[in-house]
Amino acid sequence: MKTVAIVGVGLIGGSFGLALRQNGFRGRLIGVSSAPAIEAGIAAGAIDAGAGLEEAARAADLIYLAQPVDRILTTLGSLQGLVRPTALVTDAGSTKAAIVRQAAKYLPSGSFLGGHPLAGKEQRGAQAAEPGLFAGRPYVLTPEGPATEASREFRSWLTRIGARLVEIPADEHDRIVALTSHLPQVISTALAVTLSRQPDRVNEIFGPGLLDMTRLAMSAPDLWIPILKTNKGPVTAALEAYISTLDSLRHALQNDNLVKLFETGFCWAKLLREPKAGI
Amino acid sequence: MKTVAIVGVGLIGGSFGLALRQNGFRGRLIGVSSAPAIEAGIAAGAIDAGAGLEEAARAADLIYLAQPVDRILTTLGSLQGLVRPTALVTDAGSTKAAIVRQAAKYLPSGSFLGGHPLAGKEQRGAQAAEPGLFAGRPYVLTPEGPATEASREFRSWLTRIGARLVEIPADEHDRIVALTSHLPQVISTALAVTLSRQPDRVNEIFGPGLLDMTRLAMSAPDLWIPILKTNKGPVTAALEAYISTLDSLRHALQNDNLVKLFETGFCWAKLLREPKAGI
Repeated sequence: MKTVAIVGVGLIGGSFGLALRQNGFRGRLIGVSSAPAIEAGIAAGAIDAGAGLEEAARAADLIYLAQPVDRILTTLGSLQGLVRPTALVTDAGSTKAAIVRQAAKYLPSGSFLGGHPLAGKEQRGAQAAEPGLFAGRPYVLTPEGPATEASREFRSWLTRIGARLVEIPADEHDRIVALTSHLPQVISTALAVTLSRQPDRVNEIFGPGLLDMTRLAMSAPDLWIPILKTNKGPVTAALEAYISTLDSLRHALQNDNLVKLFETGFCWAKLLREPKAGI
Repeated sequence: MKTVAIVGVGLIGGSFGLALRQNGFRGRLIGVSSAPAIEAGIAAGAIDAGAGLEEAARAADLIYLAQPVDRILTTLGSLQGLVRPTALVTDAGSTKAAIVRQAAKYLPSGSFLGGHPLAGKEQRGAQAAEPGLFAGRPYVLTPEGPATEASREFRSWLTRIGARLVEIPADEHDRIVALTSHLPQVISTALAVTLSRQPDRVNEIFGPGLLDMTRLAMSAPDLWIPILKTNKGPVTAALEAYISTLDSLRHALQNDNLVKLFETGFCWAKLLREPKAGI
């Protein structure tokens, strides 16, 4: 792997470039992004230079798509006919089924591997990139991907940058992140929207809990709306399960019967934080 | 104010004792609590000694009730006939209407001031107490309270320990915290309960957002259930408003119409974090 094209030089793309460099990658890192993003990426040391998609794709052994989900879908269409036969295309999008389908439609068979690093932070842009962003975090790969030399080499770089590889089919991935990532986002936004509709002094009397619970609401809408749009079915199911739990809690409150639900939530939240065997 | 009785030497009671000491209080601090709590309170420097409720109440110029809400209600009943004529009884309970009513029933008129420090952290007990816990945080006082010398002196100590006094009637307080504190707690618990009911690998693939959104679920059920129980009406109304927002979001997802709701949530969450004029 001598030349890597990073399409979308933001937080994730920039961190991937920095992580490669810091872990000994000596090849070329080409960025495909807006002019200010290219400038920030070069300044951060995440890429060596910028190029257009066609030029970068024709040169690259690895094409790493780190754009918002809707833009990844568009880019996959534009890559048709541009990818070298031995190259690997992979992505870092937050949903997988729609992207894997799109790749199957436009790219040669055996050239695409879907990915999703469960890493991130509030800030955006290559300015915020960190070489350690993926370290210790799960990095989902779809097992529908190819068993090529390029794919093997990419996995080995992911391991070198400290990511914890998790193989999981695209549909199952989307169902799980609907619950563990998309649902938390929607309920944080819903809390902020609910409070925005209240009169009086709600923004005056609150503790640290409200800040925790509305932090995700400050995520960028232009990143999140495409994520939810490409995962409608699983997100709707997750929302329905959640609303049904809220209804149980509302009834339990009326009937002074909250103990069991509160203990279940308490124990599950504690267990979530425990180190898991084999992970 | 020479003698202060702190009833319930936990995180809040212990921090109140430490805050008084650190800000120059030279009188006696008596704790009324379980034997291990008294021991931890003395070790932390939050109290000088332990005593029974009757002994402490008869000696105190200020009786500071920092127990869980249900225990404050019981203690108010037990204080009948024990409070010195010039003393002030105040509390740090998370709901106010039920407590103010109970105080009116059992204590001499003009002896009770309801309070609620919007401060806290995950840990419990006097071991976790901090003299700066109230600094910069809102401290609600119910204006139904008395205009006595003891009340004036207590307010002046609250100011000295850095609390930001906010006067607000008990009912209005309860309606606001139902939205800004009790609703966030319930929706965090509901998220953990919903995920506990899912099969497969939900606890394997998640990002930092899920940890944020389930942190409150780890709050102690024995503190929270009495809070919700003494604020059923406002919490039910808050839950209903919230479920209705979730329904709007579910519909907007179906109709590719999420932008406005996401922008509202985004802006409200940002504004919540801005310094407010006059506060």
